[in-house]
Amino acid sequence: MSRMKQEKGLQTLEKITGGAGAAVLDSLNGIAPDLAEWIVDFSYGDVMSRTVLDLKARQLATVAALTAMGSAAPQLKVHIEGARNVGCSDEEIIEVILQMAVYAGFPAAINGVNAARDVFEKPRITDIPS
Amino acid sequence: MSRMKQEKGLQTLEKITGGAGAAVLDSLNGIAPDLAEWIVDFSYGDVMSRTVLDLKARQLATVAALTAMGSAAPQLKVHIEGARNVGCSDEEIIEVILQMAVYAGFPAAINGVNAARDVFEKPRITDIPS
Amino acid sequence: MSRMKQEKGLQTLEKITGGAGAAVLDSLNGIAPDLAEWIVDFSYGDVMSRTVLDLKARQLATVAALTAMGSAAPQLKVHIEGARNVGCSDEEIIEVILQMAVYAGFPAAINGVNAARDVFEKPRITDIPS
Amino acid sequence: MSRMKQEKGLQTLEKITGGAGAAVLDSLNGIAPDLAEWIVDFSYGDVMSRTVLDLKARQLATVAALTAMGSAAPQLKVHIEGARNVGCSDEEIIEVILQMAVYAGFPAAINGVNAARDVFEKPRITDIPS
Amino acid sequence: MSRMKQEKGLQTLEKITGGAGAAVLDSLNGIAPDLAEWIVDFSYGDVMSRTVLDLKARQLATVAALTAMGSAAPQLKVHIEGARNVGCSDEEIIEVILQMAVYAGFPAAINGVNAARDVFEKPRITDIPS
Amino acid sequence: MSRMKQEKGLQTLEKITGGAGAAVLDSLNGIAPDLAEWIVDFSYGDVMSRTVLDLKARQLATVAALTAMGSAAPQLKVHIEGARNVGCSDEEIIEVILQMAVYAGFPAAINGVNAARDVFEKPRITDIPS
Repeated sequence: MSRMKQEKGLQTLEKITGGAGAAVLDSLNGIAPDLAEWIVDFSYGDVMSRTVLDLKARQLATVAALTAMGSAAPQLKVHIEGARNVGCSDEEIIEVILQMAVYAGFPAAINGVNAARDVFEKPRITDIPS
Repeated sequence: MSRMKQEKGLQTLEKITGGAGAAVLDSLNGIAPDLAEWIVDFSYGDVMSRTVLDLKARQLATVAALTAMGSAAPQLKVHIEGARNVGCSDEEIIEVILQMAVYAGFPAAINGVNAARDVFEKPRITDIPS
Repeated sequence: MSRMKQEKGLQTLEKITGGAGAAVLDSLNGIAPDLAEWIVDFSYGDVMSRTVLDLKARQLATVAALTAMGSAAPQLKVHIEGARNVGCSDEEIIEVILQMAVYAGFPAAINGVNAARDVFEKPRITDIPS
Repeated sequence: MSRMKQEKGLQTLEKITGGAGAAVLDSLNGIAPDLAEWIVDFSYGDVMSRTVLDLKARQLATVAALTAMGSAAPQLKVHIEGARNVGCSDEEIIEVILQMAVYAGFPAAINGVNAARDVFEKPRITDIPS
Repeated sequence: MSRMKQEKGLQTLEKITGGAGAAVLDSLNGIAPDLAEWIVDFSYGDVMSRTVLDLKARQLATVAALTAMGSAAPQLKVHIEGARNVGCSDEEIIEVILQMAVYAGFPAAINGVNAARDVFEKPRITDIPS
Repeated sequence: MSRMKQEKGLQTLEKITGGAGAAVLDSLNGIAPDLAEWIVDFSYGDVMSRTVLDLKARQLATVAALTAMGSAAPQLKVHIEGARNVGCSDEEIIEVILQMAVYAGFPAAINGVNAARDVFEKPRITDIPS
């Protein structure tokens, strides 16, 4: 049962974050392996794997929240990339960040757009010629 | 032109917030009429009327952000009701609030669920027998 | 296994929050039963049951964090009561709240002290004459 | 020396907050008398008594900050009243709150305006006929 | 009419932020041109151009708010420079940042002072010998 | 008397932060010497020197609060090192950071763990062979 949840968590983590999530887990494993386990089991296994909302709606909500909070720049980038990974267009991602100007102010929105530019400018694996 | 933006803003405000938004505008008119005008022209005319995202995705993003911020309880209730008004199910609204347990912690999620309960328990106009 | 985690979570929740935690779970059960389950399994089963820190140190840390955040008044009260339940003196609880004046400002500390007063002034079950 | 700082602090506190500050000190004295002392000695004696900025500029800055933070509603009201006490017009107070719509979002500004309305609607001592 | 607002916004933006604001607009134009437009039309045209408060009071309020929020380091620097541009002395800017130790805690004030140091240490255009 | 408070403050600052606190004071002395003085007199002399809580409990509470706030990365590192300096084990420091996943969300906890890794990986003075 617990094994199943872990596998489901890993699959959802992989679908959303691709290599970035695995890199976070790896970096945590040396210093806080339980945090890495909770991310897989609880965040992705219990919460993000649920089907009431599709992954596009979930990622737009996460990008909105992290933009508004303004205190989690690395995670905002991971989830902007995650939004792309589950099928959100760059235009949709920018749009939900812009909306935060209304709810959390212009500095939050400007910093969110700058995070998105950093993500968009990195070559995506699928853009790299073989 | 400016007139058109104002009308578009009022329409979107009405679509999302129904009577609640109009009540906020009314309450502001006596003390800060320019803020009421900016809400119509900028927040709803410039931002929320754009069509890159549909109103359901927008409202879920707003509910996520306000739940995560934890500093805007009255507006969270207005936008939970707004999410219902544009077609989000109660289950979807609760779901995006629950997701915030991961990104902003359990107190934020619990307070968000309590705000939703308050909104859900008020009779909706369409529930009132004629 | 999962059953064991749930039981451990419930025991720790009971030790820390007494009746208050059970009341929160009950209030969530009608509208967001999964959130209630995560509180038991993850927050109290996975995290708060660990033995690296004793429950007094944990509760002082939680009271510090919620005072500093300033966005979770109901949870702050639950955890002030929780600090008392696991053996913190009222003087120690006030002390950690006062310390937040340095790190999060005087309004946070004043609101924290007011939350503590509300908790301290309620009769405790052990204060009620039989 | 320390006595002088305390007296200066009390004078500045009285000038800015009038009766409201004294009431806060009184309410703290039973439960956290050291916090009351620090407010007088440090906040008002060391910081707010300095003359680099006049009290009007200081109060507008405090109202701006507390509106933007959104986590200190009682203190925001005390300092809106404080802004009036040191000579800010109601129009100036509303204006600095409105400005926060840009930097911290519309919910912060709306909640700030509502706090101001509550303060403005209370009769001021000077409004009471003798 | 809208054209006039845009021109007024650009003038106020130029007066406050000098080259820094123009650089922000340029950087946004490639990825989120509407956000750049809203900054000119709404933030600077509608809000910051109003005359109820002078630009010195406005900039001190913005520096206070961004210091207290602690989540917008790049914008804090732009507005510290903006405060200088509209006539605030370095001493006044530091003073309003110090005041935030009281309302938002010492880490916020220390980070604000460090931001000011970075701005003050850059040569100003008027300091550069011709 | 005031001299005694200053000496007590300096001693407590030295005990908790070692060289890091002195470096912060030095860096402030050129631009905001009063802030440096308040840190010694108020933060460490008035607050952190009190004996109701021992320094280990105080540092765990500070690490918890700064992790949860997420807006004071440099200070979080100083206080993680401070926690070590007063006798907290690395395991205890990580544990209180992990606990913040529950109260402030996973991004706060992940960023806290990354701050701890940075501190732990720097050689400590006592690790340097003579």
